[in-house]
Amino acid sequence: MAAARSLASCIFCKIIKGEIPSFKLVETELSYSFLDIGPLSKGHALVIPKDHTVKMHELPDEYLADAMPIAKKIAIAQGLENFNILQNNGRIAHQEVDHVHFHVIPKPSASDNEGLVIGWPAQKPSMDDLKAFHAELVGKLEGKL
Amino acid sequence: MAAARSLASCIFCKIIKGEIPSFKLVETELSYSFLDIGPLSKGHALVIPKDHTVKMHELPDEYLADAMPIAKKIAIAQGLENFNILQNNGRIAHQEVDHVHFHVIPKPSASDNEGLVIGWPAQKPSMDDLKAFHAELVGKLEGKL
Repeated sequence: MAAARSLASCIFCKIIKGEIPSFKLVETELSYSFLDIGPLSKGHALVIPKDHTVKMHELPDEYLADAMPIAKKIAIAQGLENFNILQNNGRIAHQEVDHVHFHVIPKPSASDNEGLVIGWPAQKPSMDDLKAFHAELVGKLEGKL
Repeated sequence: MAAARSLASCIFCKIIKGEIPSFKLVETELSYSFLDIGPLSKGHALVIPKDHTVKMHELPDEYLADAMPIAKKIAIAQGLENFNILQNNGRIAHQEVDHVHFHVIPKPSASDNEGLVIGWPAQKPSMDDLKAFHAELVGKLEGKL
């Protein structure tokens, strides 16, 4: 496994190193988790890899694999039944800190005043369009395009 | 590893078994992924475990660990830079199919007309409240409460 990268100016790297205090929850060799101090709801937590990577598709698989079981532990400890797991990549996709982080966001009620608020502008592509796009994407996934 | 559970009436279990056609992307021993036919944006995909589990905190860790590297592959194949990973648990948290699924949702523009639309009703808890909640949650995580 490659050594974890760190960026001196990154607030999450500082939290991992203990240079900035945090309300730590679960820590593993690869991940660190803590309470968000600007939560969307009580219990909102973050799970972050101990590797400074900006976006999830740049993160080594072992870190990605480690994160979700931690989110699960945090959900179970809180007894959550309604909650969202969210991971944002890019400013227009609501990423605010440039270090991969998975949000665990309790949704205690249907209210738009707490928890994640989701808008769902579903599109209606034709089956032909989906079929053509699918063929292209499968080609890329198989390294043929 | 326990045998994967399946539910005859579940639409995602039917997709995994091939009883309902899908635009399949990546398949592994533990996971199946395909294009969402009611996408929020072009390329919206779902990664689902091959185990019928309603919510993510009920899913065995090996399935959770398998899902994210697949989402990463799909993001890379599409050349995504702006996108969201979303996993919803419970009706009020926007879960519509009762089988765990991770959304990979491209965000091609900042428009509210395509991609995931996110509302962020941040709370402002006091440090004392956070501290008390943290102590309680750590107790639960450590199995002491």
